[in-house]
Amino acid sequence: MTAYDTDNIFAKILRGEIPSHRVYEDEATIAFMDVMPQADGHVLVVPKAPSRNLLDADPATLAGLIQVVQTIAQAAQEAFEADGISIMQFNEAAGGQSVFHLHFHVIPRHEGRPLKPHTGTMADHGLLAAQAEKLREALAG
Amino acid sequence: MTAYDTDNIFAKILRGEIPSHRVYEDEATIAFMDVMPQADGHVLVVPKAPSRNLLDADPATLAGLIQVVQTIAQAAQEAFEADGISIMQFNEAAGGQSVFHLHFHVIPRHEGRPLKPHTGTMADHGLLAAQAEKLREALAG
Repeated sequence: MTAYDTDNIFAKILRGEIPSHRVYEDEATIAFMDVMPQADGHVLVVPKAPSRNLLDADPATLAGLIQVVQTIAQAAQEAFEADGISIMQFNEAAGGQSVFHLHFHVIPRHEGRPLKPHTGTMADHGLLAAQAEKLREALAG
Repeated sequence: MTAYDTDNIFAKILRGEIPSHRVYEDEATIAFMDVMPQADGHVLVVPKAPSRNLLDADPATLAGLIQVVQTIAQAAQEAFEADGISIMQFNEAAGGQSVFHLHFHVIPRHEGRPLKPHTGTMADHGLLAAQAEKLREALAG
């Protein structure tokens, strides 16, 4: 497997070199809005520890990370009145991965609304900011 | 959220009432071949503890489960010479869930081979048995 690249976009977000709409942070993890969401409220949960994906991750990192994924999923269900939540985690390009720092997708789902394809189009930042605020409120409540 | 239904298919597999092509078992977890695979080597990782999905799961169960998901993903990559691994975990029907006992999908991927749709068609049991054996060998090695 290719080595971890410290110049990937999520590493830059972790270092604060690129802005993000953060919804959660603890000593090991951050969560922020996906800028190319496949549904409203699409969040990424990302460990601070560097790993390319789940295949080379420290098992202890994964154990903590999945508990944050659960917390975010529960809050997203409430914040966006979701009928369901799809969680996806992609490894290597053939597995669907496009940014090579381990991350989980947490995607609120509603009956009758299929996932939007990855078009490469950025969402409106005002909308993402409002969704992040909703999620932070649900996490605080 | 609807309560846990003890008559779901995975509960029956856990109780040994329905056969499965098992690849892994420990005190908290089993893993077996998906009988309607979206790709060759598609495995399900399932905790023995009852929960409907990730939203109502015990966080400690999740922490252990994701480490088994990693172990299976690493073995599947080796066993099926996969170019990548897609991991999916669906919550409620709108989120893609069809069996209401928490489970993670571990799906080996190869360049240029899209996922097969869920057709409801069962895979050949001889093929599944052979794939399970390959995975058990990778796990043992």
